[in-house]
Amino acid sequence: MSDFQAWATAAQARTENVLSALLPPPDIAPQRLHQAMRYAVLGGGKRVRALLAYAAGELCNANAEQVDLAAASVELIHAYSLVHDDLPCMDDDDLRRGKPSCHKQFDEATALLVGDALQTLAFQVLAKPEAFPDARQQVTMIHLLTQASGSRGMAGGQAIDLASVGLSLTQQELEFMHIHKTGALIRAAALLGAHSAPLQDETRTRALDHYAKCIGLAFQVVDDILDDQADTATLGKTAGKDAEQNKPTYVTILGLERAKALADELHADAIASITPFGEQGQRLVQLADFITGRAY
Amino acid sequence: MSDFQAWATAAQARTENVLSALLPPPDIAPQRLHQAMRYAVLGGGKRVRALLAYAAGELCNANAEQVDLAAASVELIHAYSLVHDDLPCMDDDDLRRGKPSCHKQFDEATALLVGDALQTLAFQVLAKPEAFPDARQQVTMIHLLTQASGSRGMAGGQAIDLASVGLSLTQQELEFMHIHKTGALIRAAALLGAHSAPLQDETRTRALDHYAKCIGLAFQVVDDILDDQADTATLGKTAGKDAEQNKPTYVTILGLERAKALADELHADAIASITPFGEQGQRLVQLADFITGRAY
Repeated sequence: MSDFQAWATAAQARTENVLSALLPPPDIAPQRLHQAMRYAVLGGGKRVRALLAYAAGELCNANAEQVDLAAASVELIHAYSLVHDDLPCMDDDDLRRGKPSCHKQFDEATALLVGDALQTLAFQVLAKPEAFPDARQQVTMIHLLTQASGSRGMAGGQAIDLASVGLSLTQQELEFMHIHKTGALIRAAALLGAHSAPLQDETRTRALDHYAKCIGLAFQVVDDILDDQADTATLGKTAGKDAEQNKPTYVTILGLERAKALADELHADAIASITPFGEQGQRLVQLADFITGRAY
Repeated sequence: MSDFQAWATAAQARTENVLSALLPPPDIAPQRLHQAMRYAVLGGGKRVRALLAYAAGELCNANAEQVDLAAASVELIHAYSLVHDDLPCMDDDDLRRGKPSCHKQFDEATALLVGDALQTLAFQVLAKPEAFPDARQQVTMIHLLTQASGSRGMAGGQAIDLASVGLSLTQQELEFMHIHKTGALIRAAALLGAHSAPLQDETRTRALDHYAKCIGLAFQVVDDILDDQADTATLGKTAGKDAEQNKPTYVTILGLERAKALADELHADAIASITPFGEQGQRLVQLADFITGRAY
């Protein structure tokens, strides 16, 4: 196992433990809701956003303990978005991470409330009184996560995505959608990791911001490539749905080869912004490799 | 027009203006989502939660300007919950405040995202950097709103409500549901109003807490009475749905007369906790009258 794999595995396990401790226990009322929340969050996922938060923390001299709440909060927002995204009125997906999606395992009303309550929990985690030494910094972090999640961030991206079904988008329009739909939260993951540090370093935060924007887009380009190529069994979710729903993707707009070239370019750009920081940026560099070269 | 009516009308108009300024403009992308968010929030509602926040502010020496963000944040949470509650997989309601509900006016996917984005906006409003003089106080307010909204607050109450359809609940079980479903946010409205004050007074906050618990429950008892009696035209929403869906209510459990007596009792209890503060509590006393004696 490579050094990076060992680090990632440890960070994923750490994320799982932190999330499990933050989620309400399954035996506390309302039990079914709490069981469904745990089902939707625990036991799966690559935790890319949490890994990003921890790696960004390393760049900014925050230890893992200081980053735990930031990592958990972005994973909770991500989990809520998947639960709502899978609902029949949205993407209508029966499979998620190789398991029945939340509304299939429970029911639609429960899944709706699961998403709602997970979003609340994400902010609750960051708003725990005294969780961070500087309350003003804490308010900044919460605000940052709201910007990434709301109508001018992730939720807005979903709306643009919905509106684009069956339309022929330009690359620029597709990018605008992804910057909101997935990019905003990936960027927030990196920035929240940085903000978890006891001292703020603006040069590093700016570099991280650029890195995260590139890697967020690369992540989406790779996702489109995988969705085009992989079969359902390998992917753990229903493959080829984008094409089936006539959704524009980087592959449909650019073709496979140019989509791959774009992913490589974004990957190189992300790494270039981090290399000046040497050893402390190594996890971010490895993470960029992992995200663009990832195999399920 | 009574002094209270004039005050309430002014506070409702104030709330409308504050919300309109905080909601994203309808011409900013994604336009349809932003238009739907504004549709769901603006132009209606009694703004009971905002009135409570302003009245609590008066008790605690906060002026209206200082309470604006608190009042808006609870109204945004309330509005999100109505949009999701009206969805087909939940209460499946076509009417809200005399207009088509959000998913009828737009579509289900948009309504889902509207609720999601309104929840985010509620926290964004409170997390605006420097919005409050004391950042630690600000974090406390955000945390308070998450507790009231999440799986052990409002969303949890919805889950308990769903699970109780067709069951015969005891009065105690019904109360447990309502304390979560509506009580938690009403309590948060009062407490956030109090926390908006520059100086905190624990005696007043404790009295407010008791007041809000009583009035929250009274609000629900009255709602059940109205739902039992009113017709759809007067109510502005589909009447008699609870009975039709075989949901337990205070009227079905206690009968009409005992339900009315309970509302009176809770009303008296609420007022008793506020009277020691004389003139500064008058809006809260009038608000208790308004809530229990209200006519649509």
